[in-house]
Amino acid sequence: MLVDNPFSSGEVKPFKGPTRLLLGPGPQNAHPEVHAAMSLPQVGHMDVDFLVIVEDLKKLLRYVWQTKNTFTIPVSGTGSAAWEAAIANLTEVGDTHLICVNGYFGERALDMHSRYGAKVEHIRKPYGTVFTLDEIRAGLEEHKPKLMWICHAETSTGTKQPMDGIGDLCREHDCLLLLDTVTSICGVPVYLDEWMVDAAYAGTQKCMGCPPGVAPLTFGDRALTKLAARTTPVPNWYLDMTMIRKYIQSSGGAPRVYHHTAPISMIYAMRAALQLVAEEGLENVWARHQSNADYLVDELKKLDLEVLVTDDDIRLPSLTTVRIPQGVDGKAVVVYMREKFNIEIGLALGELAGKVWRIGLMGYNSRREIAKTGVAALAEALQAQGFQKGKL
Amino acid sequence: MLVDNPFSSGEVKPFKGPTRLLLGPGPQNAHPEVHAAMSLPQVGHMDVDFLVIVEDLKKLLRYVWQTKNTFTIPVSGTGSAAWEAAIANLTEVGDTHLICVNGYFGERALDMHSRYGAKVEHIRKPYGTVFTLDEIRAGLEEHKPKLMWICHAETSTGTKQPMDGIGDLCREHDCLLLLDTVTSICGVPVYLDEWMVDAAYAGTQKCMGCPPGVAPLTFGDRALTKLAARTTPVPNWYLDMTMIRKYIQSSGGAPRVYHHTAPISMIYAMRAALQLVAEEGLENVWARHQSNADYLVDELKKLDLEVLVTDDDIRLPSLTTVRIPQGVDGKAVVVYMREKFNIEIGLALGELAGKVWRIGLMGYNSRREIAKTGVAALAEALQAQGFQKGKL
Repeated sequence: MLVDNPFSSGEVKPFKGPTRLLLGPGPQNAHPEVHAAMSLPQVGHMDVDFLVIVEDLKKLLRYVWQTKNTFTIPVSGTGSAAWEAAIANLTEVGDTHLICVNGYFGERALDMHSRYGAKVEHIRKPYGTVFTLDEIRAGLEEHKPKLMWICHAETSTGTKQPMDGIGDLCREHDCLLLLDTVTSICGVPVYLDEWMVDAAYAGTQKCMGCPPGVAPLTFGDRALTKLAARTTPVPNWYLDMTMIRKYIQSSGGAPRVYHHTAPISMIYAMRAALQLVAEEGLENVWARHQSNADYLVDELKKLDLEVLVTDDDIRLPSLTTVRIPQGVDGKAVVVYMREKFNIEIGLALGELAGKVWRIGLMGYNSRREIAKTGVAALAEALQAQGFQKGKL
Repeated sequence: MLVDNPFSSGEVKPFKGPTRLLLGPGPQNAHPEVHAAMSLPQVGHMDVDFLVIVEDLKKLLRYVWQTKNTFTIPVSGTGSAAWEAAIANLTEVGDTHLICVNGYFGERALDMHSRYGAKVEHIRKPYGTVFTLDEIRAGLEEHKPKLMWICHAETSTGTKQPMDGIGDLCREHDCLLLLDTVTSICGVPVYLDEWMVDAAYAGTQKCMGCPPGVAPLTFGDRALTKLAARTTPVPNWYLDMTMIRKYIQSSGGAPRVYHHTAPISMIYAMRAALQLVAEEGLENVWARHQSNADYLVDELKKLDLEVLVTDDDIRLPSLTTVRIPQGVDGKAVVVYMREKFNIEIGLALGELAGKVWRIGLMGYNSRREIAKTGVAALAEALQAQGFQKGKL
C-alpha cells in the first residue's frame, strides 16, 4: 500500500476525549438526553418514520421561534450553512443588501453577502452597542436595499438588539428583513412573527443545548415570494430551497422527492433538544437564562470585574463579555482555566481581541452551579496572575 | 404566545425511534462504537484537543483513500456538501466541465456543475454499464474540459467504474479529474494517488459505517494550483476552502483561524468509524465487502432473481441492483419488508425506477448473517406476491 495504516504504525492513537465544561461562545455542553438520542439506531432519510420526526421538528422550531412560517426547516450543516442558504436563495445578482455591523458577525456578513452578486452596503456602530430605529431608517433611506441583515444576539460582543419597529421600517422600505438568531434561539425571547421578520436562521449548539451539525432556517411569505420570483437558479445546489422544499414539505399529498441525505443522527439530537425546551416551557427557559446571567454578572462584580455591556436592557443573557483588567494576560487566564479545571471560556474576535473574555451560559449549561463553578475558577486564574479584587 | 407549545398540546409526542435494519443504498446502520463516540461530551471547535482529533482524522482519511494529499479534510455537511465544495472551489465562470453520465448521480452532476458558471458537457452510457478509455478519450478530445467528473461507484445502478488509465488521459488533456467515491470509500479498493485523481469526495453513511453529517474531501496539487490561481473569490462562503484551509491546516506553526463551527459530534463519529476500519485493516475490509456481496448474489440467484450488473468485474460489492421480476410490485415488496421485518431495501432512481431494487451491504452491515437475513425476508415478501423460484 502507498499509504500505511496510521493506526498500526502508532501514528494515530486510540481516542480519549477530554471532559470539558464549555463556557465559551458555543458550542456548549449538550444535555445527556440529546447525546442519548444520537446513540439511537438511525432510520433512512426517506423512511416514513423519519418524515414524522422532521414534521415534529418543524412544529417545535416554529414554537421556539414563535412563528407560523410553514417553511421552517433543519438545514444539513452548521449555523453558517443556514445563513449561507438564506443568502443564496434570497439574493439575485445586483440586489443591494444592507448589513448592520456592530460586531464580528457583522464584519463576516459583509463578506458572506458579497458572494452571490449582491451590492453590499452597511451601517456601523461601535462594538458593544446596538442600533436605534433612526439609524436603521437612515440606512434604509440612503441605500434602498432589497434585504437587510441584522444580528439579534451578537456573540462577539454580548449585545441584544432591540427589535421593536425594525420590521415595520423594512416593510415601509420594501426590504426583506433577515435576522441572525444563532445565540438567541431557545435562550432569549424571540418573536419572529410579531417582529415581522422575513427570514431567520439559528444554531443548535448554543441555547438549544444540542451539538452543532444541523441548523434551523425559516422563510416567511415575503421571502418565499422572492424565492419564487427568481429569474435564475439558486447558485448553490446543496442549499437550493426550491428543491429542498420538495423533499421536506409534504403538500397536497405529493410524494417527497429525494434531494440529499439528511444528517439523521443530528436531526434526532435536535428533536430531543427541542423537546426538552418544550417540556420545560419556553418562557421558563428564557427566564432561566436571564436569571443565571444576572447571577453571573453579580458574581463577576464581586471580583471587581466589569462587563462590556453595562446597559441591562441590551446585555445578552446567553453570552457575557467581561473586560480583561489592565495588566492581566487574558490568554493565560483562558489556558489556566482549561489546564487546571477543564473549563473553556472564550477569547474575543475582531476589534475586541485582547480586551474581553466571553463567558456563555447556554442551554443545559445555564445553571446556577455552573455559573458558580466558572466564576470560582476564574477567580483562581486571576489570583495566579496577581489580580485580586481590583488590586494588581 | 402566538405559537402554542406543541408538546403540551399533544401535537408532538415523545420520540420513539424505530429499529430498522438498513439494507438500502445508505445510510446504513452505524457501528455501536460510532454511536458511542457521538455520546461523548464535546470539546470546542478551537480546542487544542479537537485539533488533535482533526489531525488524526486527516491521517486516517488519507489511508482509506490511499492518498498523500495534505489537503484531506472533513466537510461540515453530508456527501453532497463535499461534492458542492469541489465544484464551488474548482470552477471559474466559463470553464467547461465534462460529466460522465451512466446513472442518476451523473444526471444530478449535470445540474450541480452548472450552478457555478461552468459550461457543462457530457458523455453518456446506458445505466448499468461503465465507460471505456476510448469513450473517455473521445469525450476529452471533443469537449476539451477543464474538469471531468466521473463516479467510481454508481449507487443508482450498482456499477464500479474501472479507473486504470483515466488519470493519464485527463493529464494528457490538461483536465482535472474529480472522482465521486461516496459508495466506494472503505468498501471497495480506492487508490486515489495511483489513479492520479486530482480531487475526490465521499460520504460517511455507506461503507465507512458512520451516520451522515460530515463528509470527506481531498484536493491534490493540481487542484490546489487551480484554487490558488482563481481570479474571483469562491462564490460560496461556507465551503470556501481558501478560508477553511486556514482553520483546518496548521502550517509553519501559524495559528488556526476560526471560520465556522465544525459538527463536532459527527467528527467524533467519523474518527471512531475510521479507527474501526484501520483496526480491521483496509484490505480486510475490502475483502469482507466483496465476500459478502458475492454471497448475497449467490443467495439471490437461488431465488431465481437476477442482478442488473452481470459482469463480475464491474459489479459494485457495496450495492447490488436486483431486477424486479415481471408481475411483481416492487414497491409492495419494499413496504412488506419494512412493515413485517423492519428491514429497509431501496427502490431505484431515474430511469431504473420500477425496474430494480437496491440492496446494500456496507460497513457494519456487510456481514454474512445480515445478507442471510435480508434474502430470507425478501423471499417471504416475494412469496406474499405469489412469486416462487421463477414461477409467477
